[in-house]
This record gives sequence, C-alpha cells and structure tokens, in this order.
Amino acid sequence: MISTGHEVLAGVLRIREKRLQALLWQRAKPPHPNRWSLPGGRLGPDETVEHSIRRQLAEKVDVRELTHVEQISVFSAPDRVPGSRVVATAFLGLIPSDADPELPDDTCWHPVEDLPETAFDHEGILFAARERLRAKLSYTNIGFALAPPRFTVSELRDIYSAALGYRVSATNLQRVLSRRGALEATGQTVAAGPSGGRPPALFRFTSRDLQITDAFAVLRPPG
Amino acid sequence: MISTGHEVLAGVLRIREKRLQALLWQRAKPPHPNRWSLPGGRLGPDETVEHSIRRQLAEKVDVRELTHVEQISVFSAPDRVPGSRVVATAFLGLIPSDADPELPDDTCWHPVEDLPETAFDHEGILFAARERLRAKLSYTNIGFALAPPRFTVSELRDIYSAALGYRVSATNLQRVLSRRGALEATGQTVAAGPSGGRPPALFRFTSRDLQITDAFAVLRPPG
Repeated sequence: MISTGHEVLAGVLRIREKRLQALLWQRAKPPHPNRWSLPGGRLGPDETVEHSIRRQLAEKVDVRELTHVEQISVFSAPDRVPGSRVVATAFLGLIPSDADPELPDDTCWHPVEDLPETAFDHEGILFAARERLRAKLSYTNIGFALAPPRFTVSELRDIYSAALGYRVSATNLQRVLSRRGALEATGQTVAAGPSGGRPPALFRFTSRDLQITDAFAVLRPPG
Repeated sequence: MISTGHEVLAGVLRIREKRLQALLWQRAKPPHPNRWSLPGGRLGPDETVEHSIRRQLAEKVDVRELTHVEQISVFSAPDRVPGSRVVATAFLGLIPSDADPELPDDTCWHPVEDLPETAFDHEGILFAARERLRAKLSYTNIGFALAPPRFTVSELRDIYSAALGYRVSATNLQRVLSRRGALEATGQTVAAGPSGGRPPALFRFTSRDLQITDAFAVLRPPG
C-alpha cells in the first residue's frame, strides 16, 4: 500500500485598490527559503480537509472575515514537492474588500498579476483559484463574498473588473444582477461628490449564500 | 508527518430506460463483502489522480465510451474506511445513453434511485456525483455527454428529466438550449411512428467540449 502525505492549501483572494490580491506567507527555511507560499499545511489525523483548511487559515487571518471557502481541485503530480510525496487539496477563499484582517509578520497581500517568487506549484494553484472565481462570477452570486455589505454600482463594477481582468460595464452589471434577483437597492444613497449631481444609490446582494443565479429557470422543478 | 493512503473513485452515470444508472462492482472479499463499490482504487506512485482514475476505469469499461470525466470533491472523513486512513478524490464520469460497454462479471448498472447495499461512503460519493451533474445541466452544455450523437427533442427531454429527477418541458428545453447556442438541428428527421404525423427532427449538441452556456454574455471581454 502506497502511503502519501496530504496537505491542504488555499488561494485566498480579495480586491483592493482595483486589483485582485492573494494572501501569501514567506518561507524562512528550506525547502524554497524566501519564496512565497499559500496558507495551509498538513492534514491532521482527526480532521477532514474542510476542517483542516479552516483551522490553518485561522492562523493567518481572522476567519470571521472569510466570506466564502470552497474546494477547487486536487494537485497530485508525483514530484510537486521535494522529498516524499504529498498530495494537496486546494481551496478558494474570499475576503470582502472592506475587511482588513491583521496578518502575521511573515504574511502579506500580493497582486495576483505581479506575484513574487512562489514556492512549489503554488502559483498554479493560485491561478486555478482565480479561474474558479472568474467562472463562478458568471453564473452565481459569488460577488457577495468580495463586496462590502453595501456598495454603489460603480464600486461593484470595479470589483468585478478587477476579478475578471477586463473592464465591465456598470450599467450591464446592474441590469444582469438585478434581473437575476442577486442585487437590490438598499433605498440609501451616498453623499454626492464635490462635483455635485445626483447622489449614487447604495445596493446590496440579496443573499450571502452561494446560489446559481441563472439555472435554466424554465427547467426548475414545479413549485 | 502523517501518512495517509490515497484512492480515486468515480460515480459513473448514464441514462437508460428513462432512469439514471450508476456503474458499481460487487466486492468479493472483506471489508464489506458482497456490497457494491464505485470503480477506482489506490493512487499509484507515478500517476496523478486524473491519470489514476482513467487507468482504473479502463479496467471496467471501454474508456472511449467515457464522454466526460471531472473531479468533484475530496472525501476525507478520518474513519471513512476501516483500518488505516485513506483519503479519496472523487470523480464524475458520464457515458452516453446509446453506448453499451462490455462489463466485467462483477460489475453492472444500478438505478441511482434504487441502489443495492453500497460499501463505505460510496453512496454519498455517488449522490455528490449526481448533484454535480444536476448543477452542470443548468448552466453548461453537459447534456452532450449523456445524449447520443443525434436525438429528437423528446429523447433529449427524457434524458434531462431522468438526470434531474423531475419532468422537463421538451419545448422549453429546445428553446433554452437553442437560444444559448448549445443545440442545433441536423436537418435530418426520423421516420414517423405508426400513428403518422410529421416526422420528428433530429438535433445535436454544437460542441462536445464542456462550456458554460450562459456566462453573463454582457460581461464577456470585448472581442
């Protein structure tokens, strides 16, 4: 029987200053000293991979800030780390743009478009996390996990644009998310800017649980 | 360092006689003798989980019949199998309704709604595979992997209804899949039945690669 180490790793993402950022910590010791790693670590004997990633993320960030965590994929190339074999279960974690968790000294946010030197296969895992986020932005309400509780449409446009990597139309975004029942006006507005004009309306997501927003409405079960 | 066994398992599904069926093999030896298991087995030292599941499925079915294979989730409860710990990477596999692969003597198809006694946590893995299929039917073209190359709309309706577990309208199904560019008429018809009437048109999926069919068209990148 082949015995294999098992670890859990998370690509934890947020939007800040109109850029998609990832949470990374800098390795002090070999292997790969000074390179940047995803948060996570070895699976403990009495925990599932889900318990394990939440336990290990709690060592890096206040887990109350984590608005969404999901499994993305297993990374199992036999030589993905030096030494004896370790299979990794990878997760996507999301933090809203208004949260600013305290971080350990070895840990900081890096723009995904401009990463420092990363350890092992962690860059590939991070890109897989970004791909999962981008896909889910297109057919779910997952934007709730990146946005603050209330936001203007132009703020939401900046969040979607940063996550998707291309500029999105604020008008289309509001129309599509509203039509799908994912977005609603709060009835509040923000103060108008120095140029005056009509004060922008504040919106919120109607749900903070992940939902497929489209889902072939006509194919849904009756009732 | 904790060492853990790693296995790969697949919920392989098809539609036959208007029912969703799963491929299971009957265990001869302990643990869980006579119970029914998902195809799969131990991860080999020199293979990824993707290579491993394809290698092991090839022992049960002609892999050319497999129209779609994807990772669904890791099952990692510490006591999911007796004895030393084994983490499982679970896959969904799909076979089209017109394929009839030869099977080993210990292996056969069972209706997912009426399963025999299953081994370990395999029933839960199978239900997770069914959930993944149902979710993807709503926002992708994954129906191509269950359907024959050409089909009438009412045949396709029966496939979707069996997979989703509730009756779907043939008219709505044709309209939605056509509008999304997933379905097209072949220009051919089948012979009319004994009752006469206009011979039904034959359709096909426009692609046999998995695609998100909806994907917020307005949010797509320019060009």
